[in-house]
Amino acid sequence: MRIALGQFNATVGDLAGNVAKMKKIWSDAMAAGADLVAFPEMAICGYPPEDLVYKRQFVRDNRMALEELAAACDRQTVVVGFVEQGEHGLYNAAAVIRKGRIVHTYHKCNLPNYSVFDEQRYFQSGDRPVVVDVGGLRVAVTICEDLWHTQRLTDLLMGVGRIHLLLNISASPFDVGKLSLRGEVITKCAGAFGCAVAYCNLIGGQDELVFDGRSILADSAGHIAAKARAFDEDLLVADVREDGGGVKVLPTQPPAAQPADTVEEIYQALVLGTRDYALKNGFKQAILGISGGIDSAVTAAIAAAALGPQNVQCVTMPSRFNSPETIVDSQLVADNLGCPLLAVPIEPILAQFHASLKADPLWTDEGIAYENLQARIRGMILMSLSNQGGSLVLTTGNKSEVSVGYSTLYGDSAGGFGVIKDVLKTMVYQLAEYINRHSGREVIPAATIRRIPSAELRPNQKDTDSLPDYDLLDRIITGYVEEDKSARELVDSGLPVETVERVIRMIDRNEYKRRQSAPGVRITPKAFGKDRRLPITNHYTTTVKR
Amino acid sequence: MRIALGQFNATVGDLAGNVAKMKKIWSDAMAAGADLVAFPEMAICGYPPEDLVYKRQFVRDNRMALEELAAACDRQTVVVGFVEQGEHGLYNAAAVIRKGRIVHTYHKCNLPNYSVFDEQRYFQSGDRPVVVDVGGLRVAVTICEDLWHTQRLTDLLMGVGRIHLLLNISASPFDVGKLSLRGEVITKCAGAFGCAVAYCNLIGGQDELVFDGRSILADSAGHIAAKARAFDEDLLVADVREDGGGVKVLPTQPPAAQPADTVEEIYQALVLGTRDYALKNGFKQAILGISGGIDSAVTAAIAAAALGPQNVQCVTMPSRFNSPETIVDSQLVADNLGCPLLAVPIEPILAQFHASLKADPLWTDEGIAYENLQARIRGMILMSLSNQGGSLVLTTGNKSEVSVGYSTLYGDSAGGFGVIKDVLKTMVYQLAEYINRHSGREVIPAATIRRIPSAELRPNQKDTDSLPDYDLLDRIITGYVEEDKSARELVDSGLPVETVERVIRMIDRNEYKRRQSAPGVRITPKAFGKDRRLPITNHYTTTVKR
Repeated sequence: MRIALGQFNATVGDLAGNVAKMKKIWSDAMAAGADLVAFPEMAICGYPPEDLVYKRQFVRDNRMALEELAAACDRQTVVVGFVEQGEHGLYNAAAVIRKGRIVHTYHKCNLPNYSVFDEQRYFQSGDRPVVVDVGGLRVAVTICEDLWHTQRLTDLLMGVGRIHLLLNISASPFDVGKLSLRGEVITKCAGAFGCAVAYCNLIGGQDELVFDGRSILADSAGHIAAKARAFDEDLLVADVREDGGGVKVLPTQPPAAQPADTVEEIYQALVLGTRDYALKNGFKQAILGISGGIDSAVTAAIAAAALGPQNVQCVTMPSRFNSPETIVDSQLVADNLGCPLLAVPIEPILAQFHASLKADPLWTDEGIAYENLQARIRGMILMSLSNQGGSLVLTTGNKSEVSVGYSTLYGDSAGGFGVIKDVLKTMVYQLAEYINRHSGREVIPAATIRRIPSAELRPNQKDTDSLPDYDLLDRIITGYVEEDKSARELVDSGLPVETVERVIRMIDRNEYKRRQSAPGVRITPKAFGKDRRLPITNHYTTTVKR
Repeated sequence: MRIALGQFNATVGDLAGNVAKMKKIWSDAMAAGADLVAFPEMAICGYPPEDLVYKRQFVRDNRMALEELAAACDRQTVVVGFVEQGEHGLYNAAAVIRKGRIVHTYHKCNLPNYSVFDEQRYFQSGDRPVVVDVGGLRVAVTICEDLWHTQRLTDLLMGVGRIHLLLNISASPFDVGKLSLRGEVITKCAGAFGCAVAYCNLIGGQDELVFDGRSILADSAGHIAAKARAFDEDLLVADVREDGGGVKVLPTQPPAAQPADTVEEIYQALVLGTRDYALKNGFKQAILGISGGIDSAVTAAIAAAALGPQNVQCVTMPSRFNSPETIVDSQLVADNLGCPLLAVPIEPILAQFHASLKADPLWTDEGIAYENLQARIRGMILMSLSNQGGSLVLTTGNKSEVSVGYSTLYGDSAGGFGVIKDVLKTMVYQLAEYINRHSGREVIPAATIRRIPSAELRPNQKDTDSLPDYDLLDRIITGYVEEDKSARELVDSGLPVETVERVIRMIDRNEYKRRQSAPGVRITPKAFGKDRRLPITNHYTTTVKR
């Protein structure tokens, strides 16, 4: 039996577009001699559709789109995800299409309702297995999370008899470490059921999520026989054969190249997430402020890779606090990338604001308000240019800054998409080095990488005036934000008590800023956004009781 | 048996503060001779704690706070809500405290996971009833949603024998219409179980939610015998007695005054929501831009009622596009309310921005970018004054504008709290009239109420240049946003097809602006925010197929 996994980039709500893509992929699969073609979870409507499924017309339209696809797939067997309206509610469903007709519907049993997932908000759980015969092999259909709970899956499949292949259609978002988890789950399932596993994942960016593809075929020994491309569309084709007591998987193509390491994985995730957010929201061009610092340099490089350097407008907006070196480096980054550069000095605007704000007797040009004003003037310049030219403003704040609120609301945080908002500063450095290595030249100037970080909003400012060293800061953020550790636990792991308590206070107090920030690519198991839902009004603080 | 419902304003995360409040209320209840004292759902930690419950230390601290309360309540019976760590996860729980000891724990069975609620993200469902004897009456303990599903409650209570009183501790957020729903549910339960019902609700603002209190005591005939205050703390005390086959409820106090109508209810919700957001986040003072229009006038009046007029800084920021009449009216509103007024004309800043932005050859002073620039200069002035003086910036956008994106991101939408963001324009007018009636004088000038709405960002601009009349717009928003109706259904209900399709497109396209907007008081059954989770990246549109 020949299987083809149609890993593609679906767009949420683009029913006609998704169906058109699948028809084309189906034809390719037929040309490749496939008996069974799988498409990802909710491939008809895109994932996650969120509250769109509350619109009855949307669910009806998604059904009609499924029927259109079914009619076109008039040969062999196709499995595809959609939203089904049942008698007692909605289901996250998989249709089995045979020779142009929908012959079975499977309902997802395990509905994730943690992290970024809200499936119990929308869907009822299924409780019936669907097993189909394809080319003499018995194939059990499952959806994403179903595979992750072996015991529940065993209960579900009890009594269906011998299964040769577990087919799983997924929409599994990327984060660092996710791939190895998937591998473990797949190996475990192969072992538990003595069958091959075919795992078909989505690719593409959808708001804060990026789906990485890397669909997997494993044999009944749990060995991963084939893996589709990362962060790109692919059609993974293999023969699945019973062989003695086991089931073999024989790919028809040479293996796809895979990211070499975590840094390359993150880079590719950021490029795809940025490209898809821009293009799927109708922006061919992006614009960003470039300071000569590492964050804006890395953001610009990712944007240039995503949209083409000619489509990334860099803007330098110097004030009297910017050093000659950073001004030179901002020019250098734009030149190295091949991005157009525009200079809009902010001093005259800053002077006029300062004069007007003296209407308030409290106003002064020293302190945080005056610093924020500079960042906001820059944000406004970018938004004005964006409104005039129709480009997407990219923000350049990293996760370390976003965590502790080291940013100006409506200032450097103003924009439509935060490219590196889930990337810790220590990883930004690794990305900069990767970008230079990968390009084979110094795209990001060595001086930019070496320079002591500064927001340059007052004379001789350094980030370390307000923050601990980034190595330490990032360890605290990882423990507190991503692992929900208490102050006590962090201190017990060897971190300094005063710094831990101070950083935690900063993280807690800046929820209001994050709530108004742009979406950005999620690359960690816990990003800010749908992943971490904390109240703004919150009097709880964790301290080390002394 | 004498019952006392301790309806109070809990703060999320303020474990010590919440316990201190309850100890005081408990003393008052003892002084009033109560046998049973009830506090709201999760009164120990505040509601909703959201992802705080993922912090193990938070759950441990909440347990310690409960034990402190229990030790202090060394007489009679107390029922109070908290988060319980069980063997297999967390529970939304009620502790029954008798003479200083926790003797029972009830676990909420029905966990809401729709609208603003995410309880299945955090909690396991309970499946065991808790019935306690108090003063010779049998009292079944339930939590919020448990009361809303009579059949499931019947299943839960099967086999516990005769019940005289259903005690329900709640954290039920306000929206228009919610009160009558609660009354129906309580009457239905009284009938189903032939018992009295005691419903103890929270009050207070928590980010976008406002809890309205109005705790209820109903007799076994379903008659509402007593209702606590709306939007304020209260201790509702009554005697509960078996009487023939039924159970009587005899309040010990005269009835509390209640809001006269929906408009008064909304006004009170907005005042409490604004006050609590400010005070609980450490702001004694607020600041807002005042234009002479109705939205900023109503917002200022609500802020003045919430924080005191002397704590509400009004700022008028005229440009050459503002008419002399609106400038006069903005002065008049501030004077009528007794709020300080500061004038910061924006023309000099606008001129300097315009000059600097000419660095981009596309830049022009005609069109949307130049209009947005004016709104952003105003937003920056407010943010600068806020940063300097430590006040909370209030935004003045109403739900009609927020729906269709008739606002400038980082401009008029810049701020910490959106007082009327869930109030449709047609209701803003009713609020203005209510405020004048309620004050017994013309606080909001008649001219402001009568004037044709305009953003005054270009010569002779009117809202109707871009939007349909507000009566029509608000009907479309109600149908599409709050009721999830399709374009077809709206047209079939008599609305004009072109306008319906245009407004729906505007609503869909402006999700990105709403995602970056400040929280604001939720007063409808579907506000923007946690209530309505739509993707930004979304190619679906509902049109009337012709």
